[in-house]
Amino acid sequence: MGHSKYPLVPGHEIVGIVKEVGSNVQRFKVGDYVGVGTYVNSCRECQYCDDGLEVHCSKGAVLTFDGIDVDGTITKGGYSSYIVVHERYCFMMPESYPPELAAPLLCAGITVYTPMIRHNMNQPGKSFGVIGLGGLGHLAVKFGKAFRLKVTVFSTSVSKREEALTLLGADNFVVSTDEHQMKALCNSFDFILDTASGDISFDLYLSLLKTAGVLVLVGFPSEVKFSPGSLNLGAKSISRSVTGGTKQTQEMLDFCASNKIYPNIEVIPIQYANDALERMIKKDVKYRFVIDIANSLE
Amino acid sequence: MGHSKYPLVPGHEIVGIVKEVGSNVQRFKVGDYVGVGTYVNSCRECQYCDDGLEVHCSKGAVLTFDGIDVDGTITKGGYSSYIVVHERYCFMMPESYPPELAAPLLCAGITVYTPMIRHNMNQPGKSFGVIGLGGLGHLAVKFGKAFRLKVTVFSTSVSKREEALTLLGADNFVVSTDEHQMKALCNSFDFILDTASGDISFDLYLSLLKTAGVLVLVGFPSEVKFSPGSLNLGAKSISRSVTGGTKQTQEMLDFCASNKIYPNIEVIPIQYANDALERMIKKDVKYRFVIDIANSLE
Repeated sequence: MGHSKYPLVPGHEIVGIVKEVGSNVQRFKVGDYVGVGTYVNSCRECQYCDDGLEVHCSKGAVLTFDGIDVDGTITKGGYSSYIVVHERYCFMMPESYPPELAAPLLCAGITVYTPMIRHNMNQPGKSFGVIGLGGLGHLAVKFGKAFRLKVTVFSTSVSKREEALTLLGADNFVVSTDEHQMKALCNSFDFILDTASGDISFDLYLSLLKTAGVLVLVGFPSEVKFSPGSLNLGAKSISRSVTGGTKQTQEMLDFCASNKIYPNIEVIPIQYANDALERMIKKDVKYRFVIDIANSLE
Repeated sequence: MGHSKYPLVPGHEIVGIVKEVGSNVQRFKVGDYVGVGTYVNSCRECQYCDDGLEVHCSKGAVLTFDGIDVDGTITKGGYSSYIVVHERYCFMMPESYPPELAAPLLCAGITVYTPMIRHNMNQPGKSFGVIGLGGLGHLAVKFGKAFRLKVTVFSTSVSKREEALTLLGADNFVVSTDEHQMKALCNSFDFILDTASGDISFDLYLSLLKTAGVLVLVGFPSEVKFSPGSLNLGAKSISRSVTGGTKQTQEMLDFCASNKIYPNIEVIPIQYANDALERMIKKDVKYRFVIDIANSLE
């Protein structure tokens, strides 16, 4: 299957239009609006592939960008006019969903959705903490509200208060360096999702969980370290997660369409990529850059 | 309710015969064979108490030994001829179950049973690793076999091989310092229960888990520390647990009776307690000392 009109986001997640299909393709036809996530191949015969959890393929999934496919090809992701992808790793995009908004769902969206479902963070009324308010965090807040959770955003930066509460609709905002505020929240969360890219105090956040509460990491701390007592009497858990399988990705896309969950993005031409990278390092993006490849190249 | 003929085990768990009941007692009558676990009181009005998870009582459960009860009494556990306990914290012991064997179930038994049930370690055919072969570990092996799991025992001591395989019926025994054996087991366990009292390499044991596998600590390491990558691609979890609620304790006792799960013990008179303590420090016990208070005092 060939595709594209606009592979909007490079590297990982891509959205585009099907231009050709192979003779055995059943799920898609020319003109379909499709997405491709962070992987484009897997062994298709292990237990994980059989269960629709291709990202956990026992032979390793082939990454969409800078991966090595089974035939030796280096994958180029969306930095190209066309890409050929097996239909198994393509998703039918909901008709009404704007393509530029859809692209981030295929990485950031599924990365927060998967652990939220796995750890039952979709039970209305439960209290949900989100550490960090970036590409992943802002979507976690939106999923949390769609699941009717009580959502609290933790951030080191007080400047994020307004956007957390007003723009994203979080119920509460806490500056995580404020010991007093943090202490008051002791034993009050059912779930906490760490989307921060830096290190956090695991002991501190574990103390905020209720009995049997779960802390899930989707960010990238350098080390995980805490006192066993922090998990102790409360039977608390800590877990980690990366993206999700094909079955759940399609489910997440449909959920976003029917619940009108849209990432906040800034669309840029490919020529702006270097500036965007510098701004990203300075955390100056709300909350995802989306590259409009098709229009950049016209 | 008063009780006793033989409070067999002091400190924590006790088994005995009901000698008197208060006028509001409904579940027990004089002559009943009952057990008392590691706690004898709780607030009885918080969410956890309501759910039968009194051990997680938000005001803190009152420990059976050396705890401070609501009226200021210091609890003395089984080191006494009689003990008065509210019926809520007493368990009906299965008729046929020998009392000296029953006592350890009320601490060691429920401590391993609770996380096994919570984390679905009771699914026949799944692979189950047990770190350490002491009072908790040997019961974990027995529960594992009763749940029809494939049970592997990890120990630093090769001397435990025979008892693990022959006495306890484990399917496999691995010396955890043998890098070659450990590496061969990479990504092969659904669950691992750490019952060791010392420190273990969390990165090493996490590497043995399959995708979405769970490592549960019931032992007492000094610190929990690992690379986030160890939880990473596999969506693995680490959790901790201590004993269980009253509902699950009764369930566990009945399960042990119907599945003929009996701890291996050594019955001693109270006069032997100091020697027993020294032997325990030297790990010279298979696998629990049970003090026969009633006969010691006759």
